[in-house]
Amino acid sequence: MTPGPGIFRTELPEGFHAGGVNAGVRRYRPDIGLITSTSPCVAVGVFTQNTCAATPVQYCQNLLPANNIKAIFTNSGQANAATGEQGVIDNQTMVDAVATALDCQSEQVLIASTGVIGEPVAVDKITQSIPKLVGSVSTIAEKFATAILTTDLVPKTVMKKLPLKGGVVTITGICKGSGMIHPNMATMLGYILMDVQLTTSQAQKILSTSNEKSFNMISVDGETSTNDSAFLLANGASHVSIADEEDFALLQSAVDDVMVVLAKSIARDGEGATKLLEVNIKNSADLSLAKQVARSITVSPLIKSAVNGASPNWGRVISRLGQEAVEESILNSTLLYFQGCLVYAHGKPIFEDSDKLEKLMKQDTITITIDFQSGDASATAWGCDLSEKYVEINGDYLS
Amino acid sequence: MTPGPGIFRTELPEGFHAGGVNAGVRRYRPDIGLITSTSPCVAVGVFTQNTCAATPVQYCQNLLPANNIKAIFTNSGQANAATGEQGVIDNQTMVDAVATALDCQSEQVLIASTGVIGEPVAVDKITQSIPKLVGSVSTIAEKFATAILTTDLVPKTVMKKLPLKGGVVTITGICKGSGMIHPNMATMLGYILMDVQLTTSQAQKILSTSNEKSFNMISVDGETSTNDSAFLLANGASHVSIADEEDFALLQSAVDDVMVVLAKSIARDGEGATKLLEVNIKNSADLSLAKQVARSITVSPLIKSAVNGASPNWGRVISRLGQEAVEESILNSTLLYFQGCLVYAHGKPIFEDSDKLEKLMKQDTITITIDFQSGDASATAWGCDLSEKYVEINGDYLS
Repeated sequence: MTPGPGIFRTELPEGFHAGGVNAGVRRYRPDIGLITSTSPCVAVGVFTQNTCAATPVQYCQNLLPANNIKAIFTNSGQANAATGEQGVIDNQTMVDAVATALDCQSEQVLIASTGVIGEPVAVDKITQSIPKLVGSVSTIAEKFATAILTTDLVPKTVMKKLPLKGGVVTITGICKGSGMIHPNMATMLGYILMDVQLTTSQAQKILSTSNEKSFNMISVDGETSTNDSAFLLANGASHVSIADEEDFALLQSAVDDVMVVLAKSIARDGEGATKLLEVNIKNSADLSLAKQVARSITVSPLIKSAVNGASPNWGRVISRLGQEAVEESILNSTLLYFQGCLVYAHGKPIFEDSDKLEKLMKQDTITITIDFQSGDASATAWGCDLSEKYVEINGDYLS
Repeated sequence: MTPGPGIFRTELPEGFHAGGVNAGVRRYRPDIGLITSTSPCVAVGVFTQNTCAATPVQYCQNLLPANNIKAIFTNSGQANAATGEQGVIDNQTMVDAVATALDCQSEQVLIASTGVIGEPVAVDKITQSIPKLVGSVSTIAEKFATAILTTDLVPKTVMKKLPLKGGVVTITGICKGSGMIHPNMATMLGYILMDVQLTTSQAQKILSTSNEKSFNMISVDGETSTNDSAFLLANGASHVSIADEEDFALLQSAVDDVMVVLAKSIARDGEGATKLLEVNIKNSADLSLAKQVARSITVSPLIKSAVNGASPNWGRVISRLGQEAVEESILNSTLLYFQGCLVYAHGKPIFEDSDKLEKLMKQDTITITIDFQSGDASATAWGCDLSEKYVEINGDYLS
């Protein structure tokens, strides 16, 4: 698997093209992006459960699943959420402009938006730039991956080649997300592109399954966005189909890997983040409790501040377990590890080598492992530390 | 009502005394405190719902309600939570030492602790200082109010005289709390002292009712502590009893006022806080949703960061309503006000006088009002902004 951020050139699957240009919404950086496919795609999505879902989310929810999608357009800077009737008109204007430029039907174009909630979309600037956008596409992901960023520091892409029985297929993942990250069904914006041949029901199963282990297990700040969307597009351009259950399992596992890499890249690039926080729950009798507890710890501002300060304040983790109503009998059998060091066992503190632990807390990934010793379910969630920079970014972020 | 912080001298009700001294757990500041009553008190409490409740919380839960309480002891610096069997022994040692010094039974002594979770209590230093502590008591609240502080900047006290049919009674409230504030049944530490004559059931009713509107409606950081406790002690020293339902309603209302003042003082003194955030939900068809939504907004790091930066980013409030699953039909009838200015109505932004709003956002109390126009329930919650200082305090807070 080739991680894409930075100077890498991330290849798209066969038949896909992507680009991005500046439409003048932001000063310099590309702010509109486009993914196209030469052949129509099977397309599915998972979306925010925020009841105030943005206009583009509602639009895509109506359209998907589908088997004739040709493009996804994305604008960054304005979320087109809480924008009323005008937002619906603006959304359709952008979709229609893309369809015209690509010579396809409007119903073949998906759309996602990200940015400030409640601000009107700069629709004139955007539609004027769409011919230039169409001309910008190439077989690599980076221009698009940059155009969809908001407060993110780095573009987030990943590519994986997977040999199936009928031949090799390519999976490319692209995402963005830095603040307002606490997905519930999906995350900010994620795009999984594949050249394998799939049915819509296969595609939906793969996306929903991987999403539960990846985008739904990250949090930057406990805020579920109005615009969370993850798309899976499969255009069949490799002419490789799923031969059997083994092929399907291989593909599922590969998409799991791709989406976990993307999810972790969002957590690590969380607004103001200096460290990635990984929380593993092991041997729980209750999978849904395990997931809830893992996510709860990644959300806790006290724990996130301690991670920022490299403070091994494990008492705050025990308190959080209690806040999530983990039963006393389970707390009494719990083993708690920071960076692999046992700090709490059977209801009591363990003081081993605190100098060693203090050094380990300075690493750039902090791992908290909680072993409930009471079952066989496990869950992993990712987050980041809470830094002074987060406050600075979000005191200012309103154009 | 006389607010007590700072240079004020807050009078205790008749028969109550309070004091505080330094036992050497902290460098200079008083770190153990004691409230005593010359006559036995009716005493009730409300406590954290964190399943990892601290040892002193479990101790008081076993003891209360009671009608023979003579004292409450409190130590600050160590929470005596997640301390195992040794914590239980240490708790009893402190209670026994106080009972010996006051010449009463151990069962007549309540205890509360606040500070670092998981750290052993410095029980020897504390017990050696208890005679000195007993000698420090006086008829004002400030020494005790200072001894119970942790990261708080100011002691928090309030006193109210209430004329009932049989005569005037005095209610004095004292509390502490600055971080790990998101009470669920009670808040960090609260003490309501009264010289009225009450039964335990009257006392419990008054405390639980006021608690729902006050300590249970504040949040600094969404963290429910292991040590949250609020006590109400009534010693009857005024010889005034409750004559009738009207007297009871007056007393309930007075305690409501006292506890709301205390709760707001905690929110305003939240770790790193520069502003008080007040969220009013009006005309909701569902009281429990109104409370949940009000609290949710006070917890949101994005909204708290915007308040810190004086940014009128109301889109984040709308998004939070959606995250809390407020129905779309209600969102479409919602009126949203920042500092009294209407910013969103009927699903659309309202752009009135943005210069005026920007000025108002610089005030030291920020009021967000959400009118659902769909019922007659209302709720108010208090919180504070999220500042860079919060992160600094909590990166370091571990002795």
